[in-house]
Amino acid sequence: MSRIYNFSAGPAMLPEEVLKTAAAEMLDYHDSGMSVMEMSHRSRVYQGIIDEAEADLRKLIGIPENYKVLFMQGGATLGFAMIPMNFMVKGKIDLINTGVWTKKAIKDAKIFGEVNVVASGEENGFKKIPDVKSIKFDPEADYVYMCDNNTIYGSKFKEYPETGNVPLICDMSSCFLSEPIDVKKFGMIYAGAQKNVGPAGVTICIIRDDLLARTPRQPLPAYLDYRLHAENGSMYNTPPTYGIYICGLVFKWLLKEGGLAARKANNEKKAKILYDYLDSSKFFKPYVDKDSRSLMNVTFRTPSDELDAEFLEGAKKYRFTNLKGHRSTGGLRASLYNAMPIAGVEALVKYMKEFEEAHK
Amino acid sequence: MSRIYNFSAGPAMLPEEVLKTAAAEMLDYHDSGMSVMEMSHRSRVYQGIIDEAEADLRKLIGIPENYKVLFMQGGATLGFAMIPMNFMVKGKIDLINTGVWTKKAIKDAKIFGEVNVVASGEENGFKKIPDVKSIKFDPEADYVYMCDNNTIYGSKFKEYPETGNVPLICDMSSCFLSEPIDVKKFGMIYAGAQKNVGPAGVTICIIRDDLLARTPRQPLPAYLDYRLHAENGSMYNTPPTYGIYICGLVFKWLLKEGGLAARKANNEKKAKILYDYLDSSKFFKPYVDKDSRSLMNVTFRTPSDELDAEFLEGAKKYRFTNLKGHRSTGGLRASLYNAMPIAGVEALVKYMKEFEEAHK
Repeated sequence: MSRIYNFSAGPAMLPEEVLKTAAAEMLDYHDSGMSVMEMSHRSRVYQGIIDEAEADLRKLIGIPENYKVLFMQGGATLGFAMIPMNFMVKGKIDLINTGVWTKKAIKDAKIFGEVNVVASGEENGFKKIPDVKSIKFDPEADYVYMCDNNTIYGSKFKEYPETGNVPLICDMSSCFLSEPIDVKKFGMIYAGAQKNVGPAGVTICIIRDDLLARTPRQPLPAYLDYRLHAENGSMYNTPPTYGIYICGLVFKWLLKEGGLAARKANNEKKAKILYDYLDSSKFFKPYVDKDSRSLMNVTFRTPSDELDAEFLEGAKKYRFTNLKGHRSTGGLRASLYNAMPIAGVEALVKYMKEFEEAHK
Repeated sequence: MSRIYNFSAGPAMLPEEVLKTAAAEMLDYHDSGMSVMEMSHRSRVYQGIIDEAEADLRKLIGIPENYKVLFMQGGATLGFAMIPMNFMVKGKIDLINTGVWTKKAIKDAKIFGEVNVVASGEENGFKKIPDVKSIKFDPEADYVYMCDNNTIYGSKFKEYPETGNVPLICDMSSCFLSEPIDVKKFGMIYAGAQKNVGPAGVTICIIRDDLLARTPRQPLPAYLDYRLHAENGSMYNTPPTYGIYICGLVFKWLLKEGGLAARKANNEKKAKILYDYLDSSKFFKPYVDKDSRSLMNVTFRTPSDELDAEFLEGAKKYRFTNLKGHRSTGGLRASLYNAMPIAGVEALVKYMKEFEEAHK
């Protein structure tokens, strides 16, 4: 059976040629006589794989030398705990609340100190990203925390706040590698791999050395100490070796396809096809305000829950999957990550037009 | 090039037919039109995969209904932190020290309370597992902690301590699924998958309901709370979906091959071939006392470090890999996990005999 258009919010589509390489190398990676899954993480051949993945990621983004790259586990969710455990030294942080993910970050951070929500999209149902220029930050805060792209509502920051000497820490899970990143604006960037990068179970962290050097308030358990992972090149304990290998294949694919600027242009083109149609439609309504729209997760609705359900049912005959909105919001959502081809968005819009025509 | 004998202590060999299935299904799992790596963890098809993996594991081991099975991340290392964070309620535990891994567990647990080392193999270089019958346990301890098989020294418990009403918590990382397990002796069993079960990045936890019901002393960050994972069927956040799928394929392979009793017989046969030779050799010396030997990790030495190095060099022409002992102990080590065929051990012993003959 042929491959299908998978609009999942994550785990999500991966480039077909990456999967083909992974399949071809499954029993014998580069004449090593074994699968990458079977390799000792302490072996020379695996060290080559993780070193190349890091080097390719550094090249792709242009990561300055004073930042460490870590391949971790536990997703953004474990990050919600580890970030305050490692970096909440004085005991208070500023946070921009853009919905479910930052709320989870607030809950965990409050265990360790004071969380000041300096701006929030809550009053308008997270349809709008707060205006970062008007936010007043506490110069004494340990850090400012934000989530760049909210997968659930389909919102995205268009510019980043200026936080002066206070490090900005950003959960980029669902937009990481979808566009160029100016790393030096941030103290730390982190992202679960399962959107644009690779399989679930790998979390990429990019952390500035001076932030890493902060002494934790309390002795930290080994796994929860970012410094230990940094000092051991992500090998303090066994890393998710196979997942990192797949991420490495995706980095190579991105480099070959022209890097992050080319990727952004492609993602803008895909999103424009869908948003233009949504803006012209009298039937489908986009959820997020125009100036806060995500390129990765496009959220919309028909006039009713019943029609949403009918739309999802009808999508099956085209083998479009995962168009249902997040269980906390309902509605519809099409995630257009890096590996979604333009033809996939075009095919979706064609179906949407048919559906509108049939139900107007 | 052909597949080789990989004696790695982990990540380690996987059954060839599991890898073949994974390769064949890489671009299209069961006509879903996508790789398991690309599936939403909330989709029906992926729910089927994780449910089947859990059901097969329960069948394989015979896990009683009052135990939850969790697929987690972070390896045993994150377990060293999570176990005291979740279950050290009164603030003191008993622990049997069998080397590096329990020492790491001690270090993390001490952050949260008192750790009483009730027995230790330290004075004899961890060549011997303490006699569990002579240990006096504190009936007021929160739990007793042990590591069943020490991968580094190659030691293994032959019987488990009787801890009365105090739950026994066991790190089984390197012997999990190598033999039948009497789950009801334990409050909790956990294991990193990368030895006998699957890829690095999946940690399997089997936890008794009454232990899970213990209220933590302090509010816990979400990821670090076992109950949250249990209440959400390992789906509180995105689990390591692809790794769990591979574990599921291994469970099916184990069931087909006759289950854990058959596996134990096979592992005993393999280990006997190597230990019998080591006991008869005047050149190679096994590291661990006879009554404390692991079936999974066989540690030994030649008469000198130089000859160890020469042995490793000579192993290359037979394409035997990862025979070097752990960096903390030196010497040699052959790990004979479930997927290592008998022919692999036979070939290794043949080489050892040649080497002995040439150097005696």
